[in-house]
Amino acid sequence: MCEANAYLIKDQEPELIMEAVDTIEPEDGGFKLVNIFGEQKFVRAAIHSLSLVDHKVFFKKDES
Amino acid sequence: MCEANAYLIKDQEPELIMEAVDTIEPEDGGFKLVNIFGEQKFVRAAIHSLSLVDHKVFFKKDES
Repeated sequence: MCEANAYLIKDQEPELIMEAVDTIEPEDGGFKLVNIFGEQKFVRAAIHSLSLVDHKVFFKKDES
Repeated sequence: MCEANAYLIKDQEPELIMEAVDTIEPEDGGFKLVNIFGEQKFVRAAIHSLSLVDHKVFFKKDES
């Protein structure tokens, strides 16, 4: 299985927000994450970067 | 290995732009993709959605 852990970068530090994420879909100015257990979470941030072989997805709030 | 294929959504149709992508990093108003073979590609679009268990990353140009 190739799910990944999702992190939100805050003050340069990645904070784990969800494990075993399968799908990430745009929704209402953010993204809806669904993990392999069917759990859902909404994140109000943009997808910043991915490191797939390390199973990591990073989100970051838009600086504006 | 948990690399993914990257697609650019154009006119609702996903077009394959790179296979076996490992890292995706923000760069100059777009993203730099690097695959597991070390090949690089620049994409001027946003990350639209992910389906990790299916090994797919979708990009989409900002509509503005």
